[in-house]
Amino acid sequence: MSLATFQHWTRAHQSQIRNDYFRFLRFRTISADPALRLEMARCADWLVELLEGIGFTARSIDTPGCPLVYAENLEAGSEAATLLIYGHYDVQPVDPVELWNSDPFEPTERDGKVYARGALDDKGQILYAILAMRAWKEQGLKLPINVKFCIEGEEESSSAGLAQVMGSLEELLRADYLMIADFDLFDKKTPTVTLGARGIMTMEVTLTGSASDLHSGMLGGVAYNPNRALVELLAQFWDADGRVAIPHFYDEVEELSEAERARYSSTQDREFFRREFGIEAFGGEKGYKPHEALWLRPTIEINGISGGYNGAGFKTVIPAKATAKISCRLVPNQDPARIEQLVKEFLLARVKPGMKMELRSHGGGAAFRGDPRSLLAAALSETYEEIMGVACRATLAGGSIPIIADLSRISGAQVVGMGYGLPDDNIHAPNERFDLVRLEQGIWTVARTIERIGARRHAAKS
Amino acid sequence: MSLATFQHWTRAHQSQIRNDYFRFLRFRTISADPALRLEMARCADWLVELLEGIGFTARSIDTPGCPLVYAENLEAGSEAATLLIYGHYDVQPVDPVELWNSDPFEPTERDGKVYARGALDDKGQILYAILAMRAWKEQGLKLPINVKFCIEGEEESSSAGLAQVMGSLEELLRADYLMIADFDLFDKKTPTVTLGARGIMTMEVTLTGSASDLHSGMLGGVAYNPNRALVELLAQFWDADGRVAIPHFYDEVEELSEAERARYSSTQDREFFRREFGIEAFGGEKGYKPHEALWLRPTIEINGISGGYNGAGFKTVIPAKATAKISCRLVPNQDPARIEQLVKEFLLARVKPGMKMELRSHGGGAAFRGDPRSLLAAALSETYEEIMGVACRATLAGGSIPIIADLSRISGAQVVGMGYGLPDDNIHAPNERFDLVRLEQGIWTVARTIERIGARRHAAKS
Repeated sequence: MSLATFQHWTRAHQSQIRNDYFRFLRFRTISADPALRLEMARCADWLVELLEGIGFTARSIDTPGCPLVYAENLEAGSEAATLLIYGHYDVQPVDPVELWNSDPFEPTERDGKVYARGALDDKGQILYAILAMRAWKEQGLKLPINVKFCIEGEEESSSAGLAQVMGSLEELLRADYLMIADFDLFDKKTPTVTLGARGIMTMEVTLTGSASDLHSGMLGGVAYNPNRALVELLAQFWDADGRVAIPHFYDEVEELSEAERARYSSTQDREFFRREFGIEAFGGEKGYKPHEALWLRPTIEINGISGGYNGAGFKTVIPAKATAKISCRLVPNQDPARIEQLVKEFLLARVKPGMKMELRSHGGGAAFRGDPRSLLAAALSETYEEIMGVACRATLAGGSIPIIADLSRISGAQVVGMGYGLPDDNIHAPNERFDLVRLEQGIWTVARTIERIGARRHAAKS
Repeated sequence: MSLATFQHWTRAHQSQIRNDYFRFLRFRTISADPALRLEMARCADWLVELLEGIGFTARSIDTPGCPLVYAENLEAGSEAATLLIYGHYDVQPVDPVELWNSDPFEPTERDGKVYARGALDDKGQILYAILAMRAWKEQGLKLPINVKFCIEGEEESSSAGLAQVMGSLEELLRADYLMIADFDLFDKKTPTVTLGARGIMTMEVTLTGSASDLHSGMLGGVAYNPNRALVELLAQFWDADGRVAIPHFYDEVEELSEAERARYSSTQDREFFRREFGIEAFGGEKGYKPHEALWLRPTIEINGISGGYNGAGFKTVIPAKATAKISCRLVPNQDPARIEQLVKEFLLARVKPGMKMELRSHGGGAAFRGDPRSLLAAALSETYEEIMGVACRATLAGGSIPIIADLSRISGAQVVGMGYGLPDDNIHAPNERFDLVRLEQGIWTVARTIERIGARRHAAKS
């Protein structure tokens, strides 16, 4: 085999690739919408059929939420390496739908790009991994290593279903290498392996000060306003250096080593973030560069806050309740459950007396970190360099795929993230897009990476 | 004349009173709804006709907003005292309309009470003042003093229209006494004159940190979250004693005199507010009883706060913007424009650098205070005692009628608030109500008060 083999295959099968891609994108698989449960099952069944058609044993596994698609091709034999590929077929909601230039579930090609919800995240990315298997099969050869797919239907809804059934799938999920096909390129020209992502903890705090909304004329000066209690409470999350002021928050966080700082360097300074994202006010801890704060340091954020009257004009209400949604991004060794407990204790110890406080968990997951010296990382990097012609860089992701830490533990595998996303692909936003060129590059990348893993393992044994 | 004269009159005219009352309540005069402008004008015209029918010269005066109804009966002559009566024909919105037990604009009688939007606030109250004039007229006598009415259509929408035209109406509005027919009884059994109300200043602050919403995984730790900047800013409004921490906020505020503390005493302790309003968390400044904090001390409140994702579930957004609606209740000598300036300076001096801050005024008005020794206060108190059989008390209102301070200044009149409202009449809420007994008592009160003013003034002059 060579790269040219797979390039030839994609060129010869362009319309078939596009047909499968467009069919996949037409499933309205918004996991957040309970009304679409049947559509989720239909999409899972379609994936099972697709995988069976290219030599995999595949099935849809029911969970309390949306089904999980599991598939395996173990023809390489028990001596060969096993690669587990993770992705998801569910997508984000499409609101505000009026900002889309075309129907989010009717893929539309403009200027070489395909616009649809899920075009990249993650239908585009998991599809090229599947089609890489077809490219192999159609060479008339068996796969050089064992390959398993774990394609879930609830990544955009905290992976609840997979989390529940994962424990019972330990045998199926066991692998040497775990490839997460849900990441980005550093930029258009730079191939990138993602060696970790931050974890996350999400929760909601509600303060109630009275049985019903009050009038600030009738009771202002007597009733303690829950909006006030909430801002007074949340403002204590940070110290003057921008560090999280919650006791023991950093207990498990390792200081950055010089080696780590060097490995995950970046030239992205504030000017870059100002230009790319229109950011004018910068946060983060004192003493860390923007990319270090983003990849290597934990945070606490108020993702939502709401209380009282927020419509047009003005109402002099003292609301009965005020609410905030809070999340922490976590780094390795920080346990989401422990961090949730610390945040709760912090809030309970400081809340205004008399104010009723309700705390609700919205789930989370630990950070994950892959080994830059693993065979998967090496094979993937070489393949990227072969395809894109420049040196591959290692990066970390500031975002979270909460299930990965657990999946990596249960599978026993070395984990590496890969992907062909770009910052302007509008994931989670209107007009999400991906292009057929990168879809093809994805096919070559996965096909050649498994070839390289097979060859190295073989070399190591002989 | 005697109280019995007017009691006889109301008894003899019950069905006519009810017809006028119900007709008035059927006008859908929600000033906040621009679609109802024509209805506002129709209601103003109906009031003009009603007042003309009882010997007043009346007219509807256009304003940039809803028309103002002005009427006068100056038959008492230029030597006689002049009383200006203020009220409003506009009402609050009816949302949530599903919580009403009957149509808010189809008055319905249940257990002796009339349920409708505006039943009390302020259609019921201004109507009894008007019908008191009819009671006089139908005795065949001219009024003992000059009476003017100023009935606006935008009290529930910050009185913008009246504020704009008031300066040009100085001659018309000139009076010796100004009676605000828009207040409450202290409780069911206790007649009450209201000798003042707090002023108010309302504004909105919006912080913008980036050009669009950001993802807290992609940018958390780099971008400064506007929700964070907002809670950090607003939490600085109060010091540890619950005083407003804005420099110069209290500069014009006079300390309470022992005489004032004695005049405006109350037995309403925290237990009362807990029982009546379900309040569990108490605010207010250290060193003041609840009713003192409510009537005699200024406040700052966050009436609304909003930023990021506040729907079901969780979204890890860093919003581009966060907003709060802020109001101050003011005491005498505090100028709303000056207080607005102080709050703005406070916010501008403390906002996180880079965060764009927009400040928007939502209007306001100064506190007003009446003289407890004025002839109007004395005549009104005596009348109340005559009707209800117990000593009248003087009170202050924690709420605000922003226009009154200016109206009092322009009219040059001594101001007193009166009314028959009770805390459970559900003003501004679903199922607003008033009863025909209190409506009749209102007629007697206004009719006998003007008789007393006339008699005293006559005695003083002869």
